[in-house]
Amino acid sequence: MVAVTVWNEFRHEREDDDVAAVYPDGIHEAIAGALDADHDVRTATLDEPEHGLTEGVLESTDVLLWWGHEAHDAVADAVVDRVHDRVLEGMGLIVLHSGHYAKLFKRLMGTSCSLQYREDGGTERLWVVDPGHPIADGLDEYIELPETEMYGEPFDVPEPDRLVFTSWFEGGEVFRSGCCYRRGNGRIFYFRPGHETYPIYENEAIRRVLRNAVAWASPTDGSPRTFGARE
Amino acid sequence: MVAVTVWNEFRHEREDDDVAAVYPDGIHEAIAGALDADHDVRTATLDEPEHGLTEGVLESTDVLLWWGHEAHDAVADAVVDRVHDRVLEGMGLIVLHSGHYAKLFKRLMGTSCSLQYREDGGTERLWVVDPGHPIADGLDEYIELPETEMYGEPFDVPEPDRLVFTSWFEGGEVFRSGCCYRRGNGRIFYFRPGHETYPIYENEAIRRVLRNAVAWASPTDGSPRTFGARE
Amino acid sequence: MVAVTVWNEFRHEREDDDVAAVYPDGIHEAIAGALDADHDVRTATLDEPEHGLTEGVLESTDVLLWWGHEAHDAVADAVVDRVHDRVLEGMGLIVLHSGHYAKLFKRLMGTSCSLQYREDGGTERLWVVDPGHPIADGLDEYIELPETEMYGEPFDVPEPDRLVFTSWFEGGEVFRSGCCYRRGNGRIFYFRPGHETYPIYENEAIRRVLRNAVAWASPTDGSPRTFGARE
Amino acid sequence: MVAVTVWNEFRHEREDDDVAAVYPDGIHEAIAGALDADHDVRTATLDEPEHGLTEGVLESTDVLLWWGHEAHDAVADAVVDRVHDRVLEGMGLIVLHSGHYAKLFKRLMGTSCSLQYREDGGTERLWVVDPGHPIADGLDEYIELPETEMYGEPFDVPEPDRLVFTSWFEGGEVFRSGCCYRRGNGRIFYFRPGHETYPIYENEAIRRVLRNAVAWASPTDGSPRTFGARE
Repeated sequence: MVAVTVWNEFRHEREDDDVAAVYPDGIHEAIAGALDADHDVRTATLDEPEHGLTEGVLESTDVLLWWGHEAHDAVADAVVDRVHDRVLEGMGLIVLHSGHYAKLFKRLMGTSCSLQYREDGGTERLWVVDPGHPIADGLDEYIELPETEMYGEPFDVPEPDRLVFTSWFEGGEVFRSGCCYRRGNGRIFYFRPGHETYPIYENEAIRRVLRNAVAWASPTDGSPRTFGARE
Repeated sequence: MVAVTVWNEFRHEREDDDVAAVYPDGIHEAIAGALDADHDVRTATLDEPEHGLTEGVLESTDVLLWWGHEAHDAVADAVVDRVHDRVLEGMGLIVLHSGHYAKLFKRLMGTSCSLQYREDGGTERLWVVDPGHPIADGLDEYIELPETEMYGEPFDVPEPDRLVFTSWFEGGEVFRSGCCYRRGNGRIFYFRPGHETYPIYENEAIRRVLRNAVAWASPTDGSPRTFGARE
Repeated sequence: MVAVTVWNEFRHEREDDDVAAVYPDGIHEAIAGALDADHDVRTATLDEPEHGLTEGVLESTDVLLWWGHEAHDAVADAVVDRVHDRVLEGMGLIVLHSGHYAKLFKRLMGTSCSLQYREDGGTERLWVVDPGHPIADGLDEYIELPETEMYGEPFDVPEPDRLVFTSWFEGGEVFRSGCCYRRGNGRIFYFRPGHETYPIYENEAIRRVLRNAVAWASPTDGSPRTFGARE
Repeated sequence: MVAVTVWNEFRHEREDDDVAAVYPDGIHEAIAGALDADHDVRTATLDEPEHGLTEGVLESTDVLLWWGHEAHDAVADAVVDRVHDRVLEGMGLIVLHSGHYAKLFKRLMGTSCSLQYREDGGTERLWVVDPGHPIADGLDEYIELPETEMYGEPFDVPEPDRLVFTSWFEGGEVFRSGCCYRRGNGRIFYFRPGHETYPIYENEAIRRVLRNAVAWASPTDGSPRTFGARE
């Protein structure tokens, strides 16, 4: 049983009726609903004490999902430090959509994580460019999303360890939409789809990717990581 | 002065009037014309003795460009062996378009190098996804080709060391169009654009990429590669 | 239940009393013995018809282990083709020690796979350089082998996708001893230890690595790999 | 003419007679002396205003070398921000020895950059594991340093884009001693050798590596990096 914590900024949904109409219980609940009976799922949000990410919660989390957008700066540095440390220890991390600009993700990548975007509601196709990857299990050749915000290259991240998805956008752009990284013992997956006003996380194929990514990002035992003076 | 050999199958141009109309002197001459005064350029073609790739020619070649399509099987294994060895020794190799199925490229990659395609004359945009790469020097954000054959993912090659271009196609596909590899001491660049019935190699941006790729693929000195029994 | 086939050249053991003393039932049986009750294990050897690697055997194999040394050239090209195809389809492959020069491994790598060596019976330490990797599960910081043949750099293989072990040798050399690759859908692990006159495959930590590597290399479902003309 | 800035903490040399005996003018001057007439070399040190790394200095620097050890925390965050931005824009960065724990390097890597060490004055051999890399130009198979501080694995950094050197230590350890990365447009090389009490930077082979690394890390033009809203 993989222990999953779904973190959401949870502001748009309380501030904006259009967003509330799409995600009445918050984006975190939609994501939590995508994880099936094989997961032990909790949620945490920005306005909880310590953003809901106490030491205890992190200690008992195998994989953390992260959705944020308008309030990246409101995340306390001390909490970012703590989550960062846990990722290096081995906790999996799945960063979604506008989370590319989260303090946590920028710190793990070491780059600006900038990109181009256009909120035009055009069609997106996420092509599987690595059909042998476990995150692609059970998918078709591509996932089609009829209405999305466009994200375009260049995407200022380190070259991914493996690239699983590349998006095609109706308006003429491409984007590396599914990027795998390891930092310390932690597995990190950046997954582009998701927006507060399109019901992306209700799409069955996207939900399948979330489950696959959680499985992929779950910690393994590994061997000791001892640092410092050696005799 | 970089010594470049442009190799071309040179059959379509002699067999098909439509191709001859686009490339009257052969694709090799169009490519050779793209390389400026800084290169010492030769050409070689399939129907020459030893396909024009004698030991002497290879010994004195810094970078080899390769275009083939309908006659991959007519390339003698002994010549493939010889070129393969030279790449491992350090000769640069630029494989163009349908050269993805060349014996030489498949041998260097170790995979099937299969892909999807559609000859529909649609528009292609080659997005630079690695703007810091020297092969992108002097380019805009993307290169647009008004009429091309589509190549689509999945592309069965090893994960590139660096991915420089990703193509967007009007018909809805994407493709990793500029892939960098090293094998032994040799630098290898696979570059998708090019077709016998579209004048791709007359495009100024494409010609710039060819020059950049030759510079990137040129051998460096390195250190000794000695193998076998050590005392 | 992972279906494993252990392939061994099985010539040294029948030709040389010193080898027979170390591996009386053949190296393949020692390796098979390292795989525990969670595996469905078969063995196959060079001198069986089709080297024991019929279409049926390969179809029903999840992970193939390969040990060869003096008779690489005796492996039929048609069998190499068949195994190569199965790896690209997704069968895992673990190449051991002198298998670096197997036709199959050279074909998958696209390089010479040459290295340096010295048969001096010195001590080797395999350091885990990627402690978060599942192939390192349950190991200490390093595995020490009191008597081994030395393999030294340079090792002419493509840069590994991930490097799990680096060996230190008493005589002054280093070697990338645990190299992960993907080719097509297949996962490939090259693991250096092993020799016909040292009882390497009786070492408990080495046996643990073999089990870990089999688990890591097992196929996942992935998504369709369809190639060719697209409508 | 490549514009190089050599940055040094420059405290050990002023506080400790043993260090001053090895590097009487400071480590920065020894490094600067290794860069030949093809470079336009400046130095900068911690105790200068803005640590000598003003906007003007960084703007006109192609490649920055960094040596620090006991005073990493004394480097102002604002200067780290500025240097970080310049690296992403394309300035090359060469991080030396104990600089692995510099704020700047940890920020670029996104990991702890921890390692093991032992100050025992034992012998180190830096093996070239990538003999085709330009940083290895003109070297022998390995560089031997008779007396060094040991650094051992695990080294908590992201998997390098390319690994050029692996060190062997007399005491039984190994280390990935020459690691290449790209972050944004900037090329980064971590190079292990160097210590305040051993005259490492007087070694001719080490000096050759420094020159090679400066050439490798020099910026190229690339193509535009434009981010934000697209029309």
